[in-house]
Amino acid sequence: MEVQIAVAKINKYASLESGDTLEVIERPNGGLSVVLADGQTSGRGAKAVSMMVVRKVIGLLAEGVRDGAAARAASDALYTDKNAKVSCTLNIASVDLETNTIVLSRNNPSPIFICHDDQIDCMDAESSPLGVRRDIRPVITELELQPGLMIIVYTDGLTHAGKRRGQPMDVSNAIQAMMEDQDPTPQELADSLLVHAVNLDEGRPADDVSVVVLKVQTINGDTVRRMSLRLPLS
Amino acid sequence: MEVQIAVAKINKYASLESGDTLEVIERPNGGLSVVLADGQTSGRGAKAVSMMVVRKVIGLLAEGVRDGAAARAASDALYTDKNAKVSCTLNIASVDLETNTIVLSRNNPSPIFICHDDQIDCMDAESSPLGVRRDIRPVITELELQPGLMIIVYTDGLTHAGKRRGQPMDVSNAIQAMMEDQDPTPQELADSLLVHAVNLDEGRPADDVSVVVLKVQTINGDTVRRMSLRLPLS
Repeated sequence: MEVQIAVAKINKYASLESGDTLEVIERPNGGLSVVLADGQTSGRGAKAVSMMVVRKVIGLLAEGVRDGAAARAASDALYTDKNAKVSCTLNIASVDLETNTIVLSRNNPSPIFICHDDQIDCMDAESSPLGVRRDIRPVITELELQPGLMIIVYTDGLTHAGKRRGQPMDVSNAIQAMMEDQDPTPQELADSLLVHAVNLDEGRPADDVSVVVLKVQTINGDTVRRMSLRLPLS
Repeated sequence: MEVQIAVAKINKYASLESGDTLEVIERPNGGLSVVLADGQTSGRGAKAVSMMVVRKVIGLLAEGVRDGAAARAASDALYTDKNAKVSCTLNIASVDLETNTIVLSRNNPSPIFICHDDQIDCMDAESSPLGVRRDIRPVITELELQPGLMIIVYTDGLTHAGKRRGQPMDVSNAIQAMMEDQDPTPQELADSLLVHAVNLDEGRPADDVSVVVLKVQTINGDTVRRMSLRLPLS
């Protein structure tokens, strides 16, 4: 088997800094975790909040702390630091090679989509962002690592797209259309969802948007780990 | 402008864990840093050392600590923890948007290659790995961010390739051949160097090998940040 992960990320129009922060970190007992946070509002303040949350979470995961405990700790730290006045969404998607599972932790009203075979499930159980009160806990979904599994995680910029013009994006439909038409690579799917959102906002995204796609498939080729990334500079 | 970064990484033959650890982290004042460490020996012990060093460095960089100070701190921490008995190489390649430079910090006898226009420079000033004594300092090279710049960083697995058979890899020649023949993407160049090394070891790498290629070019397309990665599972 192999896991492929793709990310597409764009700033709110005319905003130099994204309120979204995403990091990928290797897990100490095997596998990796993608950590995505979206700080309340946008710009510099939001960036500081989402970076603080992601830094806290990856620091704990690197020490072997479980994902759920890391999310709770980040929430309590944010709550304490900001006096319950600032919220931040958090998604952790982990490939855990100790348990051979994918662990999805969600503190985000935006759902996660899980595709397997021809089925697309929308995981939209109620979920609160971090930092707004004591006792925040993530919604956790654990899935067996098996070929054909595809997971789509995003920040609320995707669902806000088009709202300004009264044509909000239907993420579920967009995913379904992509999956029916072709067998998209994770990068194609992430790019396509992002482009769809940007088009609905007429090329001027109303919010920061981040899309993460994780796919498990039978191994295809060598055993080389690869990563490539692109950072456009202003 | 845009920066593209590619990584190719393979384990020593028949080794479940790589002694090399690589993480990419966003810098708090803009840009990102690639942090690559190679722990002494191989397998589980080496992995623990390189993870400890990388974790220390990314934690400090995330707080805004300068690259050189982070490398010194990681060296002192390793020296103290392991009583000067364990060494670890460290390379940090940072795209620093505060200074609009690329900052390369090297605690590694293996050189770094810097290509610009048709020129290929081998940066091989003497450099000590972390942890072996007090007062370890990195060799630092700072370069203006400008299109056409390409940087190649790797762990010593690349230079060890072929030694077993008395045909050690000539990294400089391999880079030159790639650059003359074509205008390789960073991923093509990283893959090509890795494949060359694996072939010299007859498909059974004698050591963990990691290759990082960083390229600066004029912006080509949209302003979307992208990342894709592949994790082969055993």
